[in-house]
Parts: sequence; C-alpha cells; structure tokens
Amino acid sequence: MSKYAFGVDIGGTSVKMGLFDREGNVLDKWEIPTVKDNSGASILPDVAESILAKLKEKGLREEEVLGVGVGVPGPMNDEGTILGGAVNLGWGSFNIPEALGAYIKIPVKAANDANVAAFGEMWQGGGKGYDSLVAVTLGTGVGGGIIVKGRLLVGAYGAGGEIGHIHLEDNEAESCNCGNKGCLEQYTSATGIARLAKRYLAKHDTPTVLREQSHLSAKTVFDAVKAGDAVAQEIAGQFGDYLGKGLAMVSSVVNPEIFVIGGGVSKAGEVLLSYIEPYFKKYAFGKCKETKFALAKLGNDAGIYGAAALVLQ
Amino acid sequence: MSKYAFGVDIGGTSVKMGLFDREGNVLDKWEIPTVKDNSGASILPDVAESILAKLKEKGLREEEVLGVGVGVPGPMNDEGTILGGAVNLGWGSFNIPEALGAYIKIPVKAANDANVAAFGEMWQGGGKGYDSLVAVTLGTGVGGGIIVKGRLLVGAYGAGGEIGHIHLEDNEAESCNCGNKGCLEQYTSATGIARLAKRYLAKHDTPTVLREQSHLSAKTVFDAVKAGDAVAQEIAGQFGDYLGKGLAMVSSVVNPEIFVIGGGVSKAGEVLLSYIEPYFKKYAFGKCKETKFALAKLGNDAGIYGAAALVLQ
Repeated sequence: MSKYAFGVDIGGTSVKMGLFDREGNVLDKWEIPTVKDNSGASILPDVAESILAKLKEKGLREEEVLGVGVGVPGPMNDEGTILGGAVNLGWGSFNIPEALGAYIKIPVKAANDANVAAFGEMWQGGGKGYDSLVAVTLGTGVGGGIIVKGRLLVGAYGAGGEIGHIHLEDNEAESCNCGNKGCLEQYTSATGIARLAKRYLAKHDTPTVLREQSHLSAKTVFDAVKAGDAVAQEIAGQFGDYLGKGLAMVSSVVNPEIFVIGGGVSKAGEVLLSYIEPYFKKYAFGKCKETKFALAKLGNDAGIYGAAALVLQ
Repeated sequence: MSKYAFGVDIGGTSVKMGLFDREGNVLDKWEIPTVKDNSGASILPDVAESILAKLKEKGLREEEVLGVGVGVPGPMNDEGTILGGAVNLGWGSFNIPEALGAYIKIPVKAANDANVAAFGEMWQGGGKGYDSLVAVTLGTGVGGGIIVKGRLLVGAYGAGGEIGHIHLEDNEAESCNCGNKGCLEQYTSATGIARLAKRYLAKHDTPTVLREQSHLSAKTVFDAVKAGDAVAQEIAGQFGDYLGKGLAMVSSVVNPEIFVIGGGVSKAGEVLLSYIEPYFKKYAFGKCKETKFALAKLGNDAGIYGAAALVLQ
C-alpha cells in the first residue's frame, strides 16, 4: 500500500518540499532554488529530480508514494491547469499534473498556493478539526483560501477567495495593485498597515513612539500596540475595523466555521485577533457573529502540508 | 425504475407543489394552504396527504417516485434539519426528511427555500448550463443562493448566501431588520429602492414624474426609468452602485460563472441589468469583471423546480 506523499510549494525564489506519511507527519523537508531562466522551463524537471533523489536517499520506490501535491502561485482550475499564467515563475498556461507526470510515475495534483496553504491549515494547523474555513493571509498583499465541506472553493476564473480585493473604501485616491481603488488589501496587508500609520502621523501631531521609528511597518505598529502606545492602538483599531468589516462580508457569503489568520502580520500574535474580532462582531449578520477565529500555526510550511493534503485527504 | 419527483415549496401562506419527470418537465402543479395553527403541526401531514392523493389521481405508485424535495423558509443544515426554527411557519428545530418520512414511503430531501430556488434556476431557469452561480432575490428583502460546482453552499450556521446583510454603508441612521445598519438589503430590495426614491425626493426639488405617484415603489421607479425620467434614472444608478458593489464583493469570494437576478424587482426586465452590470465591472476584481448576468426565468415556480432538483440532480 502507498504510504507516503510529497508536498511541493513552488515560490518565486525557492521550491519548498516535504515528504509526509499518511497520518500527516512530515518525515523530511528541504528546499531547492527556483530557476526562472528560459521561462521557468527547468522548474518541474528540477522538482522531479529532487523527488527521485529523495526516494533513493530514503530507500523508497515510486509505487510507495500515493501522490505529489503541488502549490502554484497563479490562478488554477480544478484540474490543475494554470489559468492565464504564473507570472512570478515565467510560466504560461499549462496542466501541472501532465507536465510533472512526464518525469515521474506518481500521480500529481495541483492547486493555487494560497488555496493549498488554507488546506494545510485545515489539515494540521490553526483550522484542525474544522471542514469549512477561510484562511486569510496578511502579507505583502492579502490572500484568502476558502474551504467548504473539505473542498477548496476555486471559482470560475480561479478567483475564489481573492478577498484582498473586496471593495471597502469609496474615499481612496491611491490605486491598489489590481487597478481598483479602496481594496481591503490597501488597509490590512503589511504594507497597508504601514500606510495607515503614515497617514495617521501626517494628519495628527499626537505624541507616539512610532515617530521615533526610521521605518514604519506592521511590526513596529503592533510592537507599539503591545507597549501601550495609544496612537498605535488607534491605528490598529482602523486596521481591525477594515478587516472585521471585510470578513463580516465574507461570512455572509460563505459562512465558514472559522477564520484562520496567517501571513507575516499574524506574527503579532493573539493581540491581532483582539483587534479583528470586536469589529467583525459589529458588522456580522446574526449567527455569523459566533464565527471562530484562530491564528495560523504552520507558517511557511502551510504550503507543503496543504500540497501533501491534496493527495492524502 | 423510479421516474418521478415531487417538488414542494413551503411558504407562509401556501405550499406550492409540483410533479416532475426525470427530465425536469413539470407534469402538474398545484397549491395547498399553509395551516399554521398548533405550531404548524399539520403542514407536513397535509403535504403528505396531497402527494398521496396526487399519486392516486395519476395512477402512480410510491415506488415510482425517486423522492420528494422540500424547500423550507428557515436556516437548514445539509441533512435537512432546521437550525433554530422556521418562525414564519411556527416551526421549531427538527429534521424534515424524518418528519415527512413518517407519512410517506418516499425518500425526502430538504433545504432552505432561497437555496432551493437558486437550484431551480440553475436546473431549468436563467442559470441553465452553469454549475457555479449566485442567485440573487430582490424582493421585500434581499436573499441569495450560492451553488458551487453543482452543490448548494449552506454554510456553518445556514447563513451561506445571506448577501442581503453584507455591510455596505457606514453612514446609515436607520436599522435593517437584522439589527445592523447599512446592509445591502436596505438599498436594493423593493422596499430599499422605494426608500432611496423617497430620500432623493426629500433632498432635491428636481421635477420628476415620481412626485405624481401616490405610492412610491420599485415598480414606479423602474417604470419611470423606462419612460426616460432623469430623476428615476439617477435613483436607479444609486441602486445599481450599491448592488454592483455588493455583488463585486461576492464575486471576489466565491467567483461564480453567473449571477441570476430574480424576485419581484426583476420584473423590471433587462433594464435592471443595465443598471447593475456597469457598477459591478467598476468594483470587481480582475477577471471577475467578466462574470455573466441573467434574469431569473422561473418566477414563483423556482422553488418547486429546485426542490425537485434536490432529488433528481
């Protein structure tokens, strides 16, 4: 019987890889560089080579592996075909299971990396024990992965869970990376929080430790929140109002059991949730107010866990 | 082989019923009154009696019926249990397939009536040919039914698709029926459109045929739009901005192939879509701008079609 699975998380700089047993324990994890020359033509051969080398190292045969799950930074359909392309890798539109399957005799499944990370958090992370959840990634941008009854919600154009681009603010002069104005991401990503802070400091002259910082970031804001700085707490409140409102909308649409909050910003810890949940409850509909919140637990490993879960779950 | 299905749509005034063949043709449809006395205790026995009478009338046996689908006006889980209760019927929380199954020897499935109507529109209505859609019902309130890859998205508390309660407006003094302020429903339901019109007329003194109306309604507004009244067109634009913005959010979350717009307000016809789509495109993210729109086609029959589809699809 097949006893193992590989989880592969393809990023713009490196490919994270993990070998898992059926129970979801990671037996080994490692990285290889992402070679983007030649439109990324060697990325999948490199992945295959690394998988075969790992099997040899461990004394395992391909038949003992249930499958290889792959997370890809681009919009994907249910069959693992990239819709449009994965620009960060130099890839166009093609089917990952077919392309990787040319090099290995192991079944392959593939999905979008944010969705895969959500799957990982459900399987072994902050969402363990739930089968309907929304994973929210607060990083440079804001991403989302939606799981309904154990299935990824991919969407017609692979845009399911693109919650960073929910329109939240009519009075916004600057454009989001997507071209629209007033997206959730503009206020609740790491860069968005820094922008809220800069705007606040420019508009008020209240004293705050934030003025002593040479570089304002989400981390400096939440460090100051923890130190009791009133201005930082005010800014965190603005962040919480935007995110709470956005997630309340999400809950009126897909009504998950739990929101799992991850990404770099979530390193602030539990204090982050204390700024999201009260605003969420203010805006949420009826019973949705009872939706749970948790911090993500797997950090940068969520991708390899979720990719393995694609074939093990 | 079982060849037939019953679709049952339980409403506060009457129970609509239909007999369908496997291909989705309605062979007969009729109504019985909803008797709400005694906490609605006779509603399901009445439904069973009517089904058995119809079988007798048509010379059919219970074995020839694949199942009975039931739409219920209350939050339901996947197993057909009412979560909390169906207040309009006087019902508490119980399992519909078990309760109705006590009177008939035919399998029963049950779901929330708005979700069931969405299913009907996908099966034989405005969403025919698609398997991921959001049905939007613009009536006294605003309801939604979400179908992802052919499955109803019910949600953890049965609140999946409760898009009428998406928070859209921070500057709202009046409360929604749900207790929050600024819900989509307050601007885009039939009553919401009438309210937008009243507010506009109170604030401006521009001449308009709307001032000649003894009773302002969504219908009088859209009739005036069609007659070329500039003020009515302005109000329709406000409606379209709110609804387009709300549906753009929905598309960033579940990314359906198509929105199917129904309910009393949709009787205005294609002109309604011409006020929704441009605003939707303004606020929608990337490829989601290409999401299709159609009017619902089944009207009050969507419920019996969708209920039958619960057992036939």
